Order: sequence, then C-alpha cells, then structure tokens
Amino acid sequence: MKKVRIGMLGIGNVAKGTYRTLELNREKIQASTGVSIEIAKILNRDISKDRGIDIPKEKYVTDAYDIINDPEIDIIVELIGGIEPATEYMAAALKNGKHVVTANKAALAVNGRMLQELAQEKHVMLRFEASVAGGIPIINAITTALMSNEIDDILGIVNGTTNYILTKMSESDADYNSVLKDAQEKGFAERDPSGDVEGHDVANKLSILMSLIFGVGILPKDIPTHGITSINKVDISIATELGYKIKLLATAKKIGKDVECNVQPCLVPASHPLSSVNNEFNAVFLRGNAVDDLMFYGKGAGPLPTGSAVMGDIIEIAKAIDKDSAFDRQPLLRFDADLRFIGEGRNQYYIRLRAEDRPGVLGNISSTFGKYSVGIETMMQRPAPKGDNTTVPLVFIVYETEREVLDKALAEIIENKHAVSVDNVIRVED
Amino acid sequence: MKKVRIGMLGIGNVAKGTYRTLELNREKIQASTGVSIEIAKILNRDISKDRGIDIPKEKYVTDAYDIINDPEIDIIVELIGGIEPATEYMAAALKNGKHVVTANKAALAVNGRMLQELAQEKHVMLRFEASVAGGIPIINAITTALMSNEIDDILGIVNGTTNYILTKMSESDADYNSVLKDAQEKGFAERDPSGDVEGHDVANKLSILMSLIFGVGILPKDIPTHGITSINKVDISIATELGYKIKLLATAKKIGKDVECNVQPCLVPASHPLSSVNNEFNAVFLRGNAVDDLMFYGKGAGPLPTGSAVMGDIIEIAKAIDKDSAFDRQPLLRFDADLRFIGEGRNQYYIRLRAEDRPGVLGNISSTFGKYSVGIETMMQRPAPKGDNTTVPLVFIVYETEREVLDKALAEIIENKHAVSVDNVIRVED
Repeated sequence: MKKVRIGMLGIGNVAKGTYRTLELNREKIQASTGVSIEIAKILNRDISKDRGIDIPKEKYVTDAYDIINDPEIDIIVELIGGIEPATEYMAAALKNGKHVVTANKAALAVNGRMLQELAQEKHVMLRFEASVAGGIPIINAITTALMSNEIDDILGIVNGTTNYILTKMSESDADYNSVLKDAQEKGFAERDPSGDVEGHDVANKLSILMSLIFGVGILPKDIPTHGITSINKVDISIATELGYKIKLLATAKKIGKDVECNVQPCLVPASHPLSSVNNEFNAVFLRGNAVDDLMFYGKGAGPLPTGSAVMGDIIEIAKAIDKDSAFDRQPLLRFDADLRFIGEGRNQYYIRLRAEDRPGVLGNISSTFGKYSVGIETMMQRPAPKGDNTTVPLVFIVYETEREVLDKALAEIIENKHAVSVDNVIRVED
Repeated sequence: MKKVRIGMLGIGNVAKGTYRTLELNREKIQASTGVSIEIAKILNRDISKDRGIDIPKEKYVTDAYDIINDPEIDIIVELIGGIEPATEYMAAALKNGKHVVTANKAALAVNGRMLQELAQEKHVMLRFEASVAGGIPIINAITTALMSNEIDDILGIVNGTTNYILTKMSESDADYNSVLKDAQEKGFAERDPSGDVEGHDVANKLSILMSLIFGVGILPKDIPTHGITSINKVDISIATELGYKIKLLATAKKIGKDVECNVQPCLVPASHPLSSVNNEFNAVFLRGNAVDDLMFYGKGAGPLPTGSAVMGDIIEIAKAIDKDSAFDRQPLLRFDADLRFIGEGRNQYYIRLRAEDRPGVLGNISSTFGKYSVGIETMMQRPAPKGDNTTVPLVFIVYETEREVLDKALAEIIENKHAVSVDNVIRVED
C-alpha cells in the first residue's frame, strides 16, 4: 500500500483536530483511498509545553524548514494561521514540489494568487476547504458539482463567534458585552475578539468565495466591512418583533457586469433558511441559474469539524498521488472576470431613530422620506426608555432604496430637528 | 479543444433541464473544463410530439441502440426513469465502454451493484448525483470531502411532492385530499401520486444513501416504509401547537454494528434545521464523527435543478476524459459492511387516542403506560369534534421507548376500553 507522508505546520486546535480526525477514521480512510496516510512531522516550537494530545515526541520538530525541505514529505499542511510566516512557508513548500493544504483564510485572501501560480508552475495541488466555513464542504461543491451553474448570489454566515453572540443576545436579551464575555469564557471568542466581531474574518472568507465563484480578486480590505459592535439588544428585540433575525452576513451579488459585496449585520426574515442558523453554526446560501437556491449548513469552526475539512483535502491529494493522476482537481481561484464593483445597490433598510415626543414629528419624518422617494413599509413606535420623558424611539423599515439617498433623507431629518438622532441603520436582506 | 459527445436517453423534464443547463452555461463550462460538451443524440420515440423545447430535429433518434452503439458517443445520460428498460440500456452502454450518468433512483437502488461492477470492469464511470435530492450535491460531498468522517446518522427530506403537501397542510389547515389536488394542478404531484405519497421514492433514495454512507445493500422493499396518507390536519395542528413540524423523513442510524432505517412521517422540533425545510425543497442532514452536524438544502426536483446535477456529473467525466486521468472518481456504492438490521430502536412517539369523556379515563391510560414503563412527556386534551359528545381526542408524547412495547400498551388500553381508538402514532425525531 502506497504511503503518503504529511508534514504539519502548527500544533494548535485545528492541527490537533486534524491529527485526531485521522486517528479516529484511519481504517475507513485507508479502505476507501487505498493509501496509508501518515502525519510524519509536526512543527512545535515549544516541545516542553503540554499540548493536551498524545503525539509521539519524535514527530515534533522546532524548525519549519526541517519539514519543508524534507524530501520524504509529500504534503505540507499549514495550520499556523496569520499571513506571515505562513505564506513564506507555503511558498517554500510549493517551490519544493510539495502539495499544500491550508485552513488559512487571511493568507489566502491576500496571497492566494501568488501561491496558486506557484502550485501550477510546479504541478502540485493547493487545497483550502477549511479556510471558508470550517467543516462545511462548500469549496468542494462550488468547484466540482456546481460548475454547471452561474452563481450570482452569495449570502453567508461564516463566523461562528459573531453568530454565537447574536444568537445569545436574541435568546437572553443580554447585552453585547456580557454575551461577549460569556463567549470568551466558553472558548467561542478569542481574548482579542476584534478580528471576529469587526468582521475582518468574514471579509477574508468572502474574498476567497468571490474569487472562486465570480472569478474576481478583491482584497479583504477593499470589501466594505462592518462588524456587530453597533448591534444592541434594542435592535435585536425589535427585529424579532417584526419577524426578523439579525445576522452578520457576507453578501455578494452579481448583476450583469456589476458586483456588490459587503460584510455587515443584516435583518433576515424568519422565513429565510439563514435565520435559523444559530449559535456557532455557519451556513452558506447560494443561488445558481440552474440549481436555484442552495444552502450548506454546519460547523464553521472547532478542532474536529475543521480537521474534517483539512483531512478531506489530504485524502483528495493522496488519491491523486496514488493514481498519479492529473493535479488539476484543486479549487481554482480566478482573478480575470471583467466586473465592476458597485456600492450597496438598492436595498430595504431598518432605521431606528430617536425623536422628541411631540405631535407632528411622525408626519415631518414621513414627509422627508417622501421627498426622497423613500417608501415606508413598516413603522413602529416604542415606549420611551426609563428616565427619558422627552424622546421616543421610532423604527422604520423602508422599501428598496439607495443607501446614499436614504442617508441624505436622514441627514435632512436631523438637520430639521424632526429627530434627535439616528441610532442605527441596518440592511434588510431577503 | 477536446469534444465530448453525449447521447441522452429520454426527452422528459429532466432531459430538457439538462439540455437547457448546458445551453445556459456553455461558455462557463467550456472555460472551466477546457472541453467542449455536445449533446449529440437524443432518444425521442415520438418526434411528431411537441416537446416544448427548441432542439434541432437531427439530434433525435427513435431507437435507443442508435445511441448506445454509436462509437462517437462518449457518455450516455439515462433520463427515462423506471427500472426497465433503463437498466438494460445502461448495462449495454457500460458494456460498450461508455460512461453513464443517470438520475434514476429506482434502477440504481435495485441494480446499482450490477451496473457498478460493469463500470469497473470496463474502466468507465457511473455517476448519479441527480438520483438523490435533485440539485443538492449530496453524493459528491459524501464521496469526496466527507470521506474523512464516519457518518452514523442520516435524516433526509428527499421528496418534494410530500414536503409540499405537508407544508401546505400546515399553512392552510386544509386536508390531505384538497392539498394533493392543488399540488397535482401545480405540477408538484403526479396524476398517480402513489410512488411519492406512499414513500417508495424516498425508500429508493435512502437505499442509495445507505450504500454510499454505511456500505450496506438494502433493497427499497426491505426498508420499512410509511407514506403521508395517514397524516391528517388534526395531527398537523396539534404538532404545531406542541412546537413540532410533521415531515416525511428518511432516517438511518448506525449504532455499533446495528443499523436501523425507516421511511415515515416524523415530528421534528421547530428548533431543528429540518423543520424549516418547506414546500418543494429537500434537505439531507448528516452527522459525522469529525464534522458533526451538516445539512444540505436545496431543490430536490424540477428540470433545471436536476439538470444542474446531471450536468455536474457530465462535467466531471468530461474533465477525466480530457486529462485521460483515473476513472476512480465516481461515487462508490458499497455492499460489504458487516452490519445487522434492527427495528426502530428506542424513540419518542406522538400518540393520538380517542377516549370516552368520563372521569378516570386519563388515570387508567396513564397507569397502563406506567405498567409498560412508557413515560409521558406531554399530554394534551382537545375539545371533542363537533357532533361528537361522547369521545374526546387525547394526545400524548411519550419518552423514548421501544415501538413494540408501546404497541402492547396501546393494545391493552383498547382492550380494557380505556380508549375507543388509537387514531395515530407518529415517531418524534430530534
């Protein structure tokens, strides 16, 4: 039986999950691939540290290049995370003619093109299923079974931390800070949560999906990105009352030659499948011109779910090595589509204002919306918060309009003192 | 550019959907595969009939063997449906060294093993993504990206007709017959709906999934199968009140060396992702030992969604032909697992009884359940239906118990005249 030798860079949670996935299912993997897969070397810079997993010490090396330059190693699995030195290591491995599997969304979103070119030059595979939505085999589906479709619409809940926080806020009526603290204690949020809660992690994943699906290269920093820090429990409870859930969505839509993409919290109708994606779960919703609506749901993080995706990639490469078959079966990032990036386009919006509690206010606000042709679908007045006798919260959901026009209307409402403040504006997605 | 020539058997809805999918996305398919795919010949027994699609007449042939024996044809796409003559045609095509793509669940569930052996003998591919859950690329996921998992749990809503009927019954409070009639008028149910509403179509699909996932061969006729004809609007409205949806589920669970499988209506808690799969949509829910819960959601029928899956298979084969690469990338039905089929195992059940409206009845029923160690989780008494002053409907949800034990308890309840009739027993799945 052919032996395929893996060198793993990193010994964090995903690395341990990958190791455990192989241990757990070695028999099945061997029977179905006809190949024996061995994780032969693991980069572990501090061997004295207890990693909480029983791995033979002789597998550990402290220098990445002991793995990258080892001629016996067939596949490098990069699970360090972060842009550098991960990119450097992957590039070096590819140059050495080794296949690379990675879960690294940040490095791929920025350096995917260069890495892929290196892989193609050396006729090796670069696979990265785990980089988007963890265990959900979305990249595999997009780049194989769904190649028969033009996909024009992507909506994703692709960050478990923020989805956990929003779910708990909606279930418990607790505020953002206390839920974040709870999430940190449970290990669903990192000590520095900014990469998650400010949406940057989602932007990395959207950048990768857009390259796979639309064939455009957009850097994460160029995707308009808003996190969940502006969402408070008032918005969540009003949204629920109006039949919506608030979710942090990655959205990308192609209309002809125009593309719009955003990372931002959105109101999702309770009837939409994405609205019941709760806690740390992820989901990617796509619309293809033949297959119509599709949704893939599962765990977007965690050692074993992510390990499942990494191991899936390793298996595909191992089978190809065994059969000596064409190495063109990796997912292909593309950067050549002739598309134009546009703003948010026309959308429905949820608007929460604070206004003085006096007659005529509502009429004035409605008239200003009317002046800008912003149609009101839903209006809701809430009781004033305790201790505030002078202002009342007003909530509007308006029909499809351009964000720019809406912002002008809102500026005029404030300028004319019809409202005291615009407390939140959230896109409504259906 | 390499040309791959397709011969299509059948000119029904799925065949037209496949043809249209290729027309719609020819450019993308060509760019991404580097292969030109041509549907060269189509079996159409009655050329005079208007098929509602613009296909050049010279592609039509009236004899299947004009396609099967044509040395210029690379791939036969079988879209006739039914066990015969579809199996005969596929076998003949494979013997002629042609790759085969099919959407035919009935033929595969019964003759999959023989067809696959023929394909392996001739080193050609047999692919059948469209045979389970239409456009949802579930077979592709199971047999590639998820090979890193042992999957022990399958729950599927894999029949659009019955899901449409159950959804409409729950939305409108209409009864089974009127909703069926509406579904037939809208084209969601066939004139003879028995294959769908009695669960046989679902049993075919479950048989295929079990072979792919568990590696066991079970004929559809050996899967305990109950359709939706016993579900009435009373059950649906009570289920809703108790926080459940009624869905026709294909279930298969592996516990050690034991397997249980069933096709039957089940109560699904409103919090479960399957409960929000509505109308003609399908979903397959899986649990892997690494990836944990996964759900794939999409259109399980319809010309274009099914055409998307057929075309996806064609593309995979075309790429392999082009690269002259190993033909081992088809999904592998397996029949060799050493597993034992068991009954339903322990489950929760919903029971609807009719009892006389007199004191002591509830106590007697509870005592009988108690005698058989059947614990009651929920009890609900409904007002008597109009015109019936003597009996009242009683609903119980009982804790996990064996179906056999429950049936004994219910027989004793009837025998002792504590209840007049057992009107329905439905499994509760969570």
